[in-house]
Amino acid sequence: MQDIKKALTARADAVEARLDALLPPISTPEGEVVEAMRYSALGGGKRLRPFLVMETAALFDVEDDYALEVAAALEMVHCYSLVHDDLPAMDDSDLRRGRETVHKKWDDATAILAGDGLLTEAFGVLADSKTHPDAEVRLKLITGLAAAAGSAGMVGGQMIDLSPNRANLDLKGITRLQDLKTGALICYACEAGAILGKATSEELKALRLYAKDIGLAFQIVDDLLDHEGTPEETGKPTGVDFDAGKATFVGQLGLNAARAKAEELICSAKSRLDIFAGKAQLLRDTATFVLERRS
Amino acid sequence: MQDIKKALTARADAVEARLDALLPPISTPEGEVVEAMRYSALGGGKRLRPFLVMETAALFDVEDDYALEVAAALEMVHCYSLVHDDLPAMDDSDLRRGRETVHKKWDDATAILAGDGLLTEAFGVLADSKTHPDAEVRLKLITGLAAAAGSAGMVGGQMIDLSPNRANLDLKGITRLQDLKTGALICYACEAGAILGKATSEELKALRLYAKDIGLAFQIVDDLLDHEGTPEETGKPTGVDFDAGKATFVGQLGLNAARAKAEELICSAKSRLDIFAGKAQLLRDTATFVLERRS
Repeated sequence: MQDIKKALTARADAVEARLDALLPPISTPEGEVVEAMRYSALGGGKRLRPFLVMETAALFDVEDDYALEVAAALEMVHCYSLVHDDLPAMDDSDLRRGRETVHKKWDDATAILAGDGLLTEAFGVLADSKTHPDAEVRLKLITGLAAAAGSAGMVGGQMIDLSPNRANLDLKGITRLQDLKTGALICYACEAGAILGKATSEELKALRLYAKDIGLAFQIVDDLLDHEGTPEETGKPTGVDFDAGKATFVGQLGLNAARAKAEELICSAKSRLDIFAGKAQLLRDTATFVLERRS
Repeated sequence: MQDIKKALTARADAVEARLDALLPPISTPEGEVVEAMRYSALGGGKRLRPFLVMETAALFDVEDDYALEVAAALEMVHCYSLVHDDLPAMDDSDLRRGRETVHKKWDDATAILAGDGLLTEAFGVLADSKTHPDAEVRLKLITGLAAAAGSAGMVGGQMIDLSPNRANLDLKGITRLQDLKTGALICYACEAGAILGKATSEELKALRLYAKDIGLAFQIVDDLLDHEGTPEETGKPTGVDFDAGKATFVGQLGLNAARAKAEELICSAKSRLDIFAGKAQLLRDTATFVLERRS
């Protein structure tokens, strides 16, 4: 676990620096929205999705400079989704990564616009020739991101999460919800590395299955942390989903079976990487990290 | 004016049909967000921006099928901006195009997500090979849209519009606000036609200046309609900006000078098109339409 934590931190620092350079500076009359964009995107965090982009790209010896652009763009999309999801009209969260959420620090309008700005900027970054010299690669990255983040992906998942039926979802329903809400972007992270690396269809498939497994495990662990963690550990309120009467993996399966399911998924995720042999060791460690994380 | 109205209607019908085909169908558990996306994007409207894409593309004999994709993508972005701007946290409007706004018909969360979904979908459409066979053209379209719609464009303009200093803007400040909030997408509409048509830099410059002129005139006419129009004519509440104490062109210049300024801009816009000679007649008529419209 030490190695993977070190690797995560190193990649996270690189992503933070790149986001800082890519996001517009605060110097204009409309600076407030830029300030809010920067606040939410530069607020630290595990940077798990960027890490997955960079490590899957590394499987194919893609230059880090290319992968870093995609990693930063994807993190912008992830951060936009957090800013919008935290709004009072949605999950109504005051705390994120141990700090005030954007609408608490500014207001709802600024949070909506900052999210809009981050989402828009992400596509601009992917279209830039710095992201990859091959135009077709950039277009595939854009197509994939639009699919993963849109109404058939993340946005659709959040919609289900807010629907009146949310409380009564069965295990299949919760799984589908999480596949869209969290899974789609995690899956895209691994796909993006494969696109950058011009992977074979077999390699792409392996990475997709790996991503699907860790994405679901990630969410089950989130549910476990919501039950067992503390706000100090997680940097956000705990017990929220449980209190809101939302159907969760833990609620459906119980604590022990939920943990067993997460372990099984992580085991499966690692086996997906067999075709990459030793080169995928950090991705296997990432799977372990997803299981054992406390925040 | 009859010809331009007929042309606008014909193009608007084509855009409506294309949007209908491009937007996802309503058939999934997350269907509500898709329904809201379709409601806002298929709600009619002048479709001025799509029209400008198609008519500027026509200057270069671009196939209508290509221009239509860009027109639909741009209209998705325009509609997303309306859905978000209408939210209670922003302009708090109940009426749009003579119908309930999305957050009134559904709720704030659905409106936020529907906007997010439309914005995301737009980039997916532009990246699709149906939009243009040349990958570099599609990437230029995406880069341009991200710049026009983001924090240095439309989103930045809306931020200024909501800022505490909004009431006290002088003429220069209002002009800059409108250049970003409304002008950026109108300018992009004309740029997009030029990108599709692989215009020379001189042609691109001419179209940009034309767009800048009609964009500003469009906003001055909006202010005039806010003062002189009725909700029946405009399909939205009138007197709103005036009542909100916002600095407007009419407030700064007075009714007569504001109208004169709009006329002057339209005259200037037409002269920008000289290099296209007779081929640009519909675009000249569009400028007249922008001035004389009552909604």
